[in-house]
Amino acid sequence: MKLQTAKGVQDVPPEEKIVKNKVVSALQETFESYGFAPLETPLLERYETLASKFAAGEASDALKETFKLTDQGKRNLGLRFDLTVPLARFVAMNPTMKMPFKRYELGPVFRDGPIRAGRVRQFWQCDVDTIGSKSMLAEAEILALVQKAFRKLNLDVVVKVNNRKLLNGILNQVRIKNKEEAIIAIDKLDKIGMEGVAEELIEKGFEEEKINRLFELIRPGVSLEGLKQKINNEEGLEGLRKLKELFGYLKSMDVDVVEFDVSLARGLAYYTGTVFEAFLKNGKIKSSLAGGGRWDDMVGNFMGGGRGVPAVGIAFGIVPIMETLKDKEKLVERTPAKAYVVPIKTVPDSLKIVQQLRENGINVDFDLNGRGVSKNLQYANSLGIPYVIIIGETELKVNKVLLRDMRSGDQELLTLSQVVKKLKLVN
Amino acid sequence: MKLQTAKGVQDVPPEEKIVKNKVVSALQETFESYGFAPLETPLLERYETLASKFAAGEASDALKETFKLTDQGKRNLGLRFDLTVPLARFVAMNPTMKMPFKRYELGPVFRDGPIRAGRVRQFWQCDVDTIGSKSMLAEAEILALVQKAFRKLNLDVVVKVNNRKLLNGILNQVRIKNKEEAIIAIDKLDKIGMEGVAEELIEKGFEEEKINRLFELIRPGVSLEGLKQKINNEEGLEGLRKLKELFGYLKSMDVDVVEFDVSLARGLAYYTGTVFEAFLKNGKIKSSLAGGGRWDDMVGNFMGGGRGVPAVGIAFGIVPIMETLKDKEKLVERTPAKAYVVPIKTVPDSLKIVQQLRENGINVDFDLNGRGVSKNLQYANSLGIPYVIIIGETELKVNKVLLRDMRSGDQELLTLSQVVKKLKLVN
Repeated sequence: MKLQTAKGVQDVPPEEKIVKNKVVSALQETFESYGFAPLETPLLERYETLASKFAAGEASDALKETFKLTDQGKRNLGLRFDLTVPLARFVAMNPTMKMPFKRYELGPVFRDGPIRAGRVRQFWQCDVDTIGSKSMLAEAEILALVQKAFRKLNLDVVVKVNNRKLLNGILNQVRIKNKEEAIIAIDKLDKIGMEGVAEELIEKGFEEEKINRLFELIRPGVSLEGLKQKINNEEGLEGLRKLKELFGYLKSMDVDVVEFDVSLARGLAYYTGTVFEAFLKNGKIKSSLAGGGRWDDMVGNFMGGGRGVPAVGIAFGIVPIMETLKDKEKLVERTPAKAYVVPIKTVPDSLKIVQQLRENGINVDFDLNGRGVSKNLQYANSLGIPYVIIIGETELKVNKVLLRDMRSGDQELLTLSQVVKKLKLVN
Repeated sequence: MKLQTAKGVQDVPPEEKIVKNKVVSALQETFESYGFAPLETPLLERYETLASKFAAGEASDALKETFKLTDQGKRNLGLRFDLTVPLARFVAMNPTMKMPFKRYELGPVFRDGPIRAGRVRQFWQCDVDTIGSKSMLAEAEILALVQKAFRKLNLDVVVKVNNRKLLNGILNQVRIKNKEEAIIAIDKLDKIGMEGVAEELIEKGFEEEKINRLFELIRPGVSLEGLKQKINNEEGLEGLRKLKELFGYLKSMDVDVVEFDVSLARGLAYYTGTVFEAFLKNGKIKSSLAGGGRWDDMVGNFMGGGRGVPAVGIAFGIVPIMETLKDKEKLVERTPAKAYVVPIKTVPDSLKIVQQLRENGINVDFDLNGRGVSKNLQYANSLGIPYVIIIGETELKVNKVLLRDMRSGDQELLTLSQVVKKLKLVN
């Protein structure tokens, strides 16, 4: 039997999982500081929930790529393809829950699709959503949280924001009927420029006169004030008002990474108002690191009875964030240990010292196999452990240990409290 | 369409997930302080890996209860039923990895079995294993880690320890041939006493004379020293020596929750030497909270070529630990927020204050829906938020806010730094 993982899924070895855990902790801390509560939904859902027209819908790619299975009772199940459908189901199943409901969830989702760079069959999503508030304060809070999260991760981002109502208003104003096709093209403005978008629209059969009028409104860098003079319909103006309100809140909250971008559309998804997307500034990675918006319809549709349930949220891409960080940092740590203790015929005393270090909050590893010093140094080096502590009879006699800095090779004879002090500073 | 979860799986709502996250953090911190590195293996495995005779084996319950599925390429896959098989596969696929390899993994596993109290179809396991050390130091380290983990969780446990070689030696000495049957009965000594075990053995056709001789050796509370006089075969004596060595290390490491128990067997699993199991002292929950032992064969069998790869590890039961904690603590927190800010016509200034509190490390929630004070108090109360901060014009004029203690109902007019100081103390 040849041992291998299932196709399209991957082990996350320690050197990557250590970084992933740091990313996850930074995100969790940020979400919790904004009062978002953790939720865990199951990885298995009833197939009919996933296939509901309010979720993926029978015709969607997500449903085509859903892993299907059955349980012992022949019930049809599927592995979840996102975290939004389980959230909508959870809220719909708990109709007496107090609103607003602010939750985050982190975990794996599955897509049985073709495999290419950056596309795997099991990957983590990380969603933050506020259910039950129509106010732009909900958007403001989420965008402030995005700024804080990326600062914690030391990533310099810009968050582009737009409003679907404004886009709809603009398309109505220039009398474009096939809005979906137009939105797909406009969404590419940043990548292919005005000429590229115009070409695509002409190819798709849009009239040149309409395209020209469209570009009078949709120009890279156009401001909210600049647009206000030109919009003459209520839907577009409402979109503008909402954006203006949002930027007011963002100013109070000291959020300065957000920029208006009239061409941002976020594809054809279920967004009903604000949309936003975070990109790395000056980075190799061009794909978005987080994206989301307002989706006021799905939960209510799930619940039925015509009840409207407003919602706004963002999904952080753990995969592109990890790629960005891998690009910046070398993955050298293969263990959380900051020190590795090598006893030279001093096992019982060394064990005591190891325990004291651990009680002082230092992550410590210990030679389990009774190897010689040089083998132990090689081992510690291969795991990327920054310090080795050598404990022989000579050291014990003077109540000290030998601390070796693995980068410089320098060795110092130190007391235990000196060692603790020094290792506490190691990140 | 009736909305429901898949059968046998559950949503973990915020009030439970908050506690679960605390449990997970306490365990992770402990594992890392002992130098164990995180690993994440996929939830999907090739079915042939799971079905391998070295893993579940074709005839096993675990395999019968494996959720099976196929991918687009018609490959047979399964959802993992434990974390040990993926670990063995990972190690076998990475033969150049430096040993010892110390890893922990936390995450969901699946069993498509009958549902009853405490048995669900998706549940979290949490495993800590050292691969590549024969030394009893590896056991000692894991048992020290168990003590530290449960202390962090404020749970008072006893860890029973035994050695399969000692048990084998005893059974050989009294000439019991059907060891598997005997071990299943002996494992119940704690629950049904010597008489109960004797009855079960007689029912199963064991000779009374052998049973009597067995009970000369296997008595509740018998010590290592007490047994040493009575064991006359090499396998049993080796088991005793290993246990004695282990207790020596545990003493150096200040571990005092571990007790020798000659009747502990840990079922028929793949253990080859030491076995251990942690139980709550004086608690309602009788099932074990963690259990493990030495399993020297599986990884080497996976790798083939007759290569021996020693391994020792423990699995923490997240489900029984959560049950125990739920029994002790009421689940009242439905949000990580420690304070909820209610602006009275002061949204922009209140937003600034909220951001300052968050920058100071306080988890803060904020009224998004512009409700009145009493509605907001009800909301904060239903989420279990301990403090509400009311900010009106009057308060802003004197550079203060009104802090309301939700338990006592007391209100105080405080400066922001006084609020920060007070809320920092809230757990």
